[in-house]
Amino acid sequence: MKVEKSSNITKTAVEIDGAKDVSIRWLISKEDGAENFAMRMFEFEPGGHTPLHTHSHEHEVFVLEGRGVFVCEGAEHELASEHVIFVPPNKEHCFKNTGDSILRMLCLIPAEAV
Amino acid sequence: MKVEKSSNITKTAVEIDGAKDVSIRWLISKEDGAENFAMRMFEFEPGGHTPLHTHSHEHEVFVLEGRGVFVCEGAEHELASEHVIFVPPNKEHCFKNTGDSILRMLCLIPAEAV
Repeated sequence: MKVEKSSNITKTAVEIDGAKDVSIRWLISKEDGAENFAMRMFEFEPGGHTPLHTHSHEHEVFVLEGRGVFVCEGAEHELASEHVIFVPPNKEHCFKNTGDSILRMLCLIPAEAV
Repeated sequence: MKVEKSSNITKTAVEIDGAKDVSIRWLISKEDGAENFAMRMFEFEPGGHTPLHTHSHEHEVFVLEGRGVFVCEGAEHELASEHVIFVPPNKEHCFKNTGDSILRMLCLIPAEAV
């Protein structure tokens, strides 16, 4: 069992190729006993983004604050607080902060993708 | 692929025995192609609660707004916005709104639990 303020959970920079000014907190993962899926929080600085990338697992995303763009298979979708996004497997996608404040979102993935 | 404002997704009352003044939105589910886990949003009116209950699947919870209590195996844990909760399988638990405004949270479960 875990009850924790998310801001108390360690934040680290996302250092994959093509990522810029993005950080991650692993809110719930296998270390907590979560065998099926993991909850992460991402923070994008203004101008920050993930690279266009593709993988065989899905994303389930909830935007907590800020403004941005979700690019999927070449189409751009505006994002704002309280938006929900399902990214199916094998769709090329990225997220970008297009606002002037932090873009913050939850992004969940299956445990086997970790 | 799905991009939607969560407030546009249908909200229905939770009508299980012992639930009071709780509603649910199924933000992402198998209907969207999500085969592994489902994202729901729960809203508790002031005084609202789920019943004490136990099941074989886990919960991954993120509190969006409000104040409340998470009861797990007889212990009470204070909840507020930005708290994260992992409820392991087979732990007796419930959630209660102890504040004077809406308590709103995301709660994710494995798809096979639906």
